[in-house]
Amino acid sequence: MLLAGTVVADAETVVEDGAVVVEGDRIAAVGDATDLAERYPDHERHEFGIIAPGAVGAHVHSVQSLGRGMADDVALLDWLNDHVLPMEAGLGAEGMRLAAELGYLECIESGVTTVVDHLSVHHADEALAAAVESGIRARAGKVLMDTNAPDGLRQDAEYALAESEALIWNYHGADEGRIRYAITPRFAVTCTEECLRGCRELADAYDGVRIHTHAAENADEVGVVEERTGRRNVEFLHDVGLTGEDVILAHCVHTDEREREIVADTGTHVTHCPSSNMKLASGVAPVEDYLARGVNVALGNDGAPCNNTLDPFTELKQASLLAKVDAADPTVVDASTAFRMATRAGARAAGFERVGALREGWRADVIGIDTNPTRATPIHDPVSHLVFAAHGDDVRFTMVDGDVLYDEADGRHRTLDADRIRREAAAFDVPGVE
Amino acid sequence: MLLAGTVVADAETVVEDGAVVVEGDRIAAVGDATDLAERYPDHERHEFGIIAPGAVGAHVHSVQSLGRGMADDVALLDWLNDHVLPMEAGLGAEGMRLAAELGYLECIESGVTTVVDHLSVHHADEALAAAVESGIRARAGKVLMDTNAPDGLRQDAEYALAESEALIWNYHGADEGRIRYAITPRFAVTCTEECLRGCRELADAYDGVRIHTHAAENADEVGVVEERTGRRNVEFLHDVGLTGEDVILAHCVHTDEREREIVADTGTHVTHCPSSNMKLASGVAPVEDYLARGVNVALGNDGAPCNNTLDPFTELKQASLLAKVDAADPTVVDASTAFRMATRAGARAAGFERVGALREGWRADVIGIDTNPTRATPIHDPVSHLVFAAHGDDVRFTMVDGDVLYDEADGRHRTLDADRIRREAAAFDVPGVE
Repeated sequence: MLLAGTVVADAETVVEDGAVVVEGDRIAAVGDATDLAERYPDHERHEFGIIAPGAVGAHVHSVQSLGRGMADDVALLDWLNDHVLPMEAGLGAEGMRLAAELGYLECIESGVTTVVDHLSVHHADEALAAAVESGIRARAGKVLMDTNAPDGLRQDAEYALAESEALIWNYHGADEGRIRYAITPRFAVTCTEECLRGCRELADAYDGVRIHTHAAENADEVGVVEERTGRRNVEFLHDVGLTGEDVILAHCVHTDEREREIVADTGTHVTHCPSSNMKLASGVAPVEDYLARGVNVALGNDGAPCNNTLDPFTELKQASLLAKVDAADPTVVDASTAFRMATRAGARAAGFERVGALREGWRADVIGIDTNPTRATPIHDPVSHLVFAAHGDDVRFTMVDGDVLYDEADGRHRTLDADRIRREAAAFDVPGVE
Repeated sequence: MLLAGTVVADAETVVEDGAVVVEGDRIAAVGDATDLAERYPDHERHEFGIIAPGAVGAHVHSVQSLGRGMADDVALLDWLNDHVLPMEAGLGAEGMRLAAELGYLECIESGVTTVVDHLSVHHADEALAAAVESGIRARAGKVLMDTNAPDGLRQDAEYALAESEALIWNYHGADEGRIRYAITPRFAVTCTEECLRGCRELADAYDGVRIHTHAAENADEVGVVEERTGRRNVEFLHDVGLTGEDVILAHCVHTDEREREIVADTGTHVTHCPSSNMKLASGVAPVEDYLARGVNVALGNDGAPCNNTLDPFTELKQASLLAKVDAADPTVVDASTAFRMATRAGARAAGFERVGALREGWRADVIGIDTNPTRATPIHDPVSHLVFAAHGDDVRFTMVDGDVLYDEADGRHRTLDADRIRREAAAFDVPGVE
C-alpha cells in the first residue's frame, strides 16, 4: 500500500508531496511521492492531506467509556466514590467488554494506534479480548486494590497478583505482540505496601512486562500517602520498587524536587493528562521541568468520565496551551514538543519498539488526515496544524501493524462493529448514574 | 419547519422528545414533539439528536482567518508586530473579503449564529458585506488605531471616526437588522484619548450602536497604559467613556478590585477568550469573580492566529476547564454556566433581543446537532454533552432568523460558496507569513 500526501514523519521531519509505503506490518519506505510511485508501481494508492504516525494514548481508561458525562462538575472524592467506583464495581463481564469496545472505537477513529490502558479490578480479560478484537496496540492490565477500596472492588493482594499473573500468561505478547501487559495497581492510596512490592516482583519475573499506576495526581491523595507512609507519593513508590524504565506514572502533578530527581534518575515515564487535570481541578503538572530534566513525558486522555473524550488531538492542543498559560510564556511546549509527547514519547512509555514515527523498517502504525475542512484552511505548518487546529474527526484512516482498522472511504471500522457498539452503549443501564 | 429531537432550550431547560417550530424568522413553539406535530401537521420535519440555540462568538476576528497557524508558539509582541499587524496591513480588499468569508464559513458550520466581530482598519466594508452575504447575525465594525501603530494601519482619529460613521449609515441595521454596528478602537495602547472619546460621542449619536475593544488582556499592555495615563487599563477606559451597557470589553484578564467594580457598576459586558488567553500566555481571567459580581460574561474564540479555530465548542469546554484548574475546584463554571455564557450572555453582550435561547416568539437562531458519533455515546446529560464532549463537527444544521444557512443533509452551505472560499484561501499568499 502506498499512502500519499504531506508526510509528518515525526515532530521534526515533514515531506511535502511525500508518501509512505507499507509492506506487511512494516514501513518499507518514506519519501517523495513521485519517486516512490515509480519504485512501487503495483502498490494500492491512497491519498490524504497529511499522513502521520498514530497517536499514543499513554494513560486511558477504556473501561470507563460508558461513564462519559456521568459525573461532571463534581468534587474529586464524590466523582470517584459516588460515580466511577460504583460503575466499575457494578459493570459485569458484558458491560466491561462493551465499555472497552466503545473506548477502542473512539481511539481508533480519532487516530490513536497505541494505548496504555488502565482497566478495572474485574473482567480485565474482557477488555483485553476487546483490545485483541479491535487490532489496537495496547499495554494494558487488570487493576489491583487491596485496601481503602469499596467492597465490590477490594481483593486480597495475593489473589489479585495471581490473577495478574494468569493474565500475563494469556495476553502478554498476544495478537502477534500488539498486546503487552502492564501490572496496574490503582494508586498508593488503595494498595498496601505488600501489594505494591508484589507488583514489582511480578514485573521482574516476566520479560517486557511493565507497571502502570497513578501518582501524585491530587493534593489530597499526596496528603493521604504522606500521612500513612511518612513519605511523599513518588518517594514512597520509589522505595517499594515502583519507579524505573518499566514504570509509567500517570499525572505526577504534585511532586517536589526530590521526587522529580527520582523520576529523572530512574528513567520512569510520566504521562501528562492536561484536560483531566483541569476538569478535576487537580493542578498543573510541571511538564517543562520534567522535560528539562530529560524525563520521558507522554500524553494521555484519561477516561471518559473526566475528559470527556479519548480524542488525542484535544490533548495535543491542551498540553501546549496549559503549559503556556501556567508559565506565562507562549513559547513553551511548542507544537513539535507536544507532537513528540503524543507519538515517540508515548511509544517509549508504552514500551513498543520502532513505533511512534514513520521510518523505514518501523511498524506501520499510520493515520491519514483530511485537510479539506474549513478549520484546516489555510495550513502554514503541518505540525502546528495537527497540534492547534486538527481534530479526531479529521482522521480518515487508521492502520496498526499494516492492518487497516478504520477507513472512512468505505465508511467503516474493519475490526469493531461500530453500529452495534454505539447502539448498545447508548441504551446501557450504567451503574453509578443517577 | 419543525425541528425534532432533544431540545436544549437554554442552560436550564431540556425537553426530551421535543420539537421547535419555526415560522418566518421566529420560533412559533417549543414543546413535546408529538403534541407539536399534531398542532403543526404541515410543517416540514427535520430530526436531530439535539436542538439548541446557536452559539454567540462574542469576540472574534473573522478577518484574521487567513492567518490561521501563521504565528504559533511565539511571544505576544512578535506575534502582533511581525505577523498579525503586517497581515492586516497587507491584505487588500480581496484578501479581507476572503478572510471574512472563511471566518463566517467556519462559524456557521460549527454552530455560531451570532458574532461580535473585530474587523480591521482597512476594508471593513468588505467584511461587513461578507457578513450580509453569509446571513450570520453580526455586531461588527472597523478598527481604529491612531497612535503606536505601524504606518500601514495608523489613521488620524478624525478620519477613522468619519469612516466609522459612514459604515454606520451603510451597515447598522442592514440585512433586516441582522447586522448592527460596533465602533471598534483596537485597544488603549493604539488609540489616543481624543480617539477614544470620539468613539463614545459617535456611539451616543446613533441608537443601538455599541463599542467593542480589547482591555487588560496582557500584563505588558496594562503596564503601557498605566505609564501613559497613570491609570489602570479599565479605569482609563471608564474615564474616557468606554464602559457601560453598550460596551463589550474582550479579555479583562488583568483587572484589580476597583476595575472589577467599575465593570460591574456600569453594566459593561466582558468577553472571556480562554483558549486565546492560554495560547498567548496572557493569563487567566477572573470569570468566577465577574459572575459573582453580576457581570455579564460572554465567550469568544478570538482569531485564527491565536486559537486556531472559531469552533465555539472548544471555548465552552475550555471556559469550564480553565476556571476549575485555576480555582482548584472542579465545581466552578459548571456546564450550565458555560452554556449560558456562550448563548444568552453572548446575545446580551452583542445587543440582540430575543436571541440566545429557544423560546416562543424569539428569533429562530437554531442549530441541529448529531448525537450519533462515538464521543456522543452515551449521553447522560445533554447540556454536559454539549459543553464537555461535543464538537463543531457535530453541527448538522444552522439557522439564523429562520433562514437555513447550512444543512449537512444536502451537503452544503446555502449562502456562502464553501468550495471556492476554501480553495482560494488555501492558495492565498498571506502577508506576514514567512
